[in-house]
Amino acid sequence: MAFVKKRLHAALLLTVVLTLLTAGTAFGTPPRENVLFQISTLSALMSGLYDEAMGFGELERHGDLGIGTFNGLDGEMVLLEGQAFQVRADGKILPVDDSAGTPFASVTFFDEDQHSELRHVDSYEVLRDTLSGLLPNRNLFYAFRVDGTFEYVKTRSVPGQKKPYPPLSEVTKHQPTFEFRNVRGTLVGFWCPDYVEGINVPGFHLHFISEDRTMGGHLLECRIQEGVAHIDHLKRFTLALPDNRSFSEVSLGGDWAEETDKVER
Amino acid sequence: MAFVKKRLHAALLLTVVLTLLTAGTAFGTPPRENVLFQISTLSALMSGLYDEAMGFGELERHGDLGIGTFNGLDGEMVLLEGQAFQVRADGKILPVDDSAGTPFASVTFFDEDQHSELRHVDSYEVLRDTLSGLLPNRNLFYAFRVDGTFEYVKTRSVPGQKKPYPPLSEVTKHQPTFEFRNVRGTLVGFWCPDYVEGINVPGFHLHFISEDRTMGGHLLECRIQEGVAHIDHLKRFTLALPDNRSFSEVSLGGDWAEETDKVER
Repeated sequence: MAFVKKRLHAALLLTVVLTLLTAGTAFGTPPRENVLFQISTLSALMSGLYDEAMGFGELERHGDLGIGTFNGLDGEMVLLEGQAFQVRADGKILPVDDSAGTPFASVTFFDEDQHSELRHVDSYEVLRDTLSGLLPNRNLFYAFRVDGTFEYVKTRSVPGQKKPYPPLSEVTKHQPTFEFRNVRGTLVGFWCPDYVEGINVPGFHLHFISEDRTMGGHLLECRIQEGVAHIDHLKRFTLALPDNRSFSEVSLGGDWAEETDKVER
Repeated sequence: MAFVKKRLHAALLLTVVLTLLTAGTAFGTPPRENVLFQISTLSALMSGLYDEAMGFGELERHGDLGIGTFNGLDGEMVLLEGQAFQVRADGKILPVDDSAGTPFASVTFFDEDQHSELRHVDSYEVLRDTLSGLLPNRNLFYAFRVDGTFEYVKTRSVPGQKKPYPPLSEVTKHQPTFEFRNVRGTLVGFWCPDYVEGINVPGFHLHFISEDRTMGGHLLECRIQEGVAHIDHLKRFTLALPDNRSFSEVSLGGDWAEETDKVER
């Protein structure tokens, strides 16, 4: 009788545990498909919409690797292995907690589909050519994680802005840049197809963070001694839109190619 | 003892049922958020990519209302209350089953956020002006279901194509059109923001289906005696991309505004 009761209790416990586990999967966490998840559009950011569109608590429910910026445009964001970092305009790097927010970010649950060894990559241009040569389909999206030893890295960050916010091209005119030599670290970011113009950056967009998490920023130039490029093929793109007054009032049509080049290169 | 055994069996049965139910929610059906789900891009369709990108069984897991076309460009698609219809080029309408497929479609789980009565709407242009005046934020996506009595409806459909597929602008040069008078029916479709150019149709894109499901097509013109416009505000956009050779080889960059106007109006 006691034995049967134990089995009864075990069965009830199993019911509760399994129900909670599967309910958690259903309602807590979106399915980990090959999705690039993005909050807001690049054109909105370029137009000076720097207020919070999503908190990091919510953002990290959609990915463990990615790039973006912070409320008020206060630095460059690197999300790597589920930990977000803020590269500030003074060069300092801080871990980000869930209470922080972002006006613009792109993330994915990184799940390698292919990798390739890199040796003596002499410039960012050569890196772009090398990586784009590895992509099987230029009309899809890709996430990258490039781990390696960098002879040289040049990055930039952006200083936090006060209202009324200037457009991004004004801010990047005076962007602080940083140079690092002989450092181990990781490039994190995405390749987007041509047709995302205005929505995201067509082509490559990479941020750097050093292995010791003391150096980083938006990548402007690099020389890689040796490394490995890990690539995740993304066949879905989800755009989450801010539903606030400034987003409803901004004009997002037209040609953003020149403006994108100005702020990203 | 028999009573305890019964309780044990009941508990085990409960375990299995609850686990299956919640697992079904987790793995079977995506969450019903306010998402416009789209397969492929309009630029790919305009370039003549008419082969299957998704089956209707999978498509209908992402929505119960929407529009699109069929494998080989064989007619206009209307999805309403979870039932898909094929408006063929000969004017006949057939129900669609799960074994059919589509190269391009947009769907959502329709969930009304606002509605507005319509009276004496004298043209599609007036309808567009009326509906766009109701939208709180022109940078979001919207789904529409307009039920009413139509004094006049003009639609078109497209005939199925054989390989090598001509571009869509060639097909629509010779499109059959249909005129209907004094008919009850429903307009189904979407409003997309300016920045989707090349990916989808900026502005309105509506298909018609009569209440008796015998008349329909891509809307070209209409006069509405009286009706109700039901509107669903969509704050997320998910683009699912075909991963096949023809999609990888087509060039999707550049300016699609003129081409879009040619094939949609």
